[in-house]
Amino acid sequence: MEMEKDLSDRVLRVFNDGVLNIDYAQNLIIIKTMSGMAMAVAACLDSLSCFGMIGTEIMGTIAGDDCIFCAVKSEENAIVAIEKMRDLLR
Amino acid sequence: MEMEKDLSDRVLRVFNDGVLNIDYAQNLIIIKTMSGMAMAVAACLDSLSCFGMIGTEIMGTIAGDDCIFCAVKSEENAIVAIEKMRDLLR
Amino acid sequence: MEMEKDLSDRVLRVFNDGVLNIDYAQNLIIIKTMSGMAMAVAACLDSLSCFGMIGTEIMGTIAGDDCIFCAVKSEENAIVAIEKMRDLLR
Amino acid sequence: MEMEKDLSDRVLRVFNDGVLNIDYAQNLIIIKTMSGMAMAVAACLDSLSCFGMIGTEIMGTIAGDDCIFCAVKSEENAIVAIEKMRDLLR
Amino acid sequence: MEMEKDLSDRVLRVFNDGVLNIDYAQNLIIIKTMSGMAMAVAACLDSLSCFGMIGTEIMGTIAGDDCIFCAVKSEENAIVAIEKMRDLLR
Amino acid sequence: MEMEKDLSDRVLRVFNDGVLNIDYAQNLIIIKTMSGMAMAVAACLDSLSCFGMIGTEIMGTIAGDDCIFCAVKSEENAIVAIEKMRDLLR
Repeated sequence: MEMEKDLSDRVLRVFNDGVLNIDYAQNLIIIKTMSGMAMAVAACLDSLSCFGMIGTEIMGTIAGDDCIFCAVKSEENAIVAIEKMRDLLR
Repeated sequence: MEMEKDLSDRVLRVFNDGVLNIDYAQNLIIIKTMSGMAMAVAACLDSLSCFGMIGTEIMGTIAGDDCIFCAVKSEENAIVAIEKMRDLLR
Repeated sequence: MEMEKDLSDRVLRVFNDGVLNIDYAQNLIIIKTMSGMAMAVAACLDSLSCFGMIGTEIMGTIAGDDCIFCAVKSEENAIVAIEKMRDLLR
Repeated sequence: MEMEKDLSDRVLRVFNDGVLNIDYAQNLIIIKTMSGMAMAVAACLDSLSCFGMIGTEIMGTIAGDDCIFCAVKSEENAIVAIEKMRDLLR
Repeated sequence: MEMEKDLSDRVLRVFNDGVLNIDYAQNLIIIKTMSGMAMAVAACLDSLSCFGMIGTEIMGTIAGDDCIFCAVKSEENAIVAIEKMRDLLR
Repeated sequence: MEMEKDLSDRVLRVFNDGVLNIDYAQNLIIIKTMSGMAMAVAACLDSLSCFGMIGTEIMGTIAGDDCIFCAVKSEENAIVAIEKMRDLLR
């Protein structure tokens, strides 16, 4: 939690404003967002990951318009990563 | 099939003009489109889904330039969803 | 201002969290955003415009990664539109 | 007009299905499209340009989600290019 | 290897300059690139594939900002395709 | 020119490999790139700008597939910025 306070607040706020649903299928995490907010939420995931608030399970992330795919190694990793993401949703 | 007729025609026409191939690998449906048409075809999928012409198996969709990935829960769901998509190709 | 209260709050919050600077050059408005938030802020502009909180001067909007271009007819229109946008920044 | 007939039909059909409005402001042409179809319409413009159905006034084209910007050298060029585009709309 | 020499050099140079890491998870290949270079590296993959320097295992490719997902039929195909890609990294 | 040598080389190489043409129309700089390389070249412009190798005339940049628009305040600024960009092309 060493992230600069104001930036941290902003990132968490955008993450919470943008995310509608988080689920997974096998080794793919699927995050549904408000329309047009997928890239912004993916940028939040990057920031949160840099600051250790999300684990290192995620191998790669691609954002579309209202949907993000995160690839992880296995279903177990998906479950762990989703748990951490959901903890960030107030 | 309650979609407004003219819009419905337009959406099906763009879907047919854009799609080159539909296949799947495990829980991922891969739709190849004409170059530059992936976003347009994905928008068609959204419309078709809103109006019940495609099922609710699809968890999320991301479009690139000439390729769309749709995530579904399982291989079985992929097969069902692809069948419905192919029915829309004249 | 008939926008549903919670959505309205969310849109304004994302707009405020995302926008770094608004300026213009001739008939082009240039909005700089947080990295990765241009599409989200552009979606906010669409919502705000739908609900009459931003005028009809804007002819078209394209979002990149951290920058949005809005085309207007003239420099005068740019000045008017920017004024309205800045009023939404708390 | 040496474009292969079937491809030509497809391109013109997508162009007509996608375009909602064409206008300009100074040296910028602004094409509004159906949601999600800007990239597809821009790809049509490229094809039409390759086959001489649209002139060489266009210096560069960028597509967003539902909007395309085409840069031309001057207002006069914008007017000429728009005229040709509108002739392709049935 | 019939690719025109100068273009071939350019494509391989961009591929090498852009790629940071190549890995896979089940039937998904994940290529991490320099920031902003995913689309360019994906275009290289297309060129390399056209000229037979990469196999036909890849069913579809989507590029984000700094990450590319390639879908293949199976884990075995992923391993084969990655091997070929790594051979192109000097 | 305090950029780390290896990164600097890489950025300049991608910039040179990607750019096909640089021109302007009024206050808009239009950079044509190899197909799929617009985002990568725009990322180079960002890096080069951070390290003072390109001036501060540029107000905002948006990249498409093979084309970049840079907005500047005036035609004079466009001419100055283009001159600096061309100096980086070997």
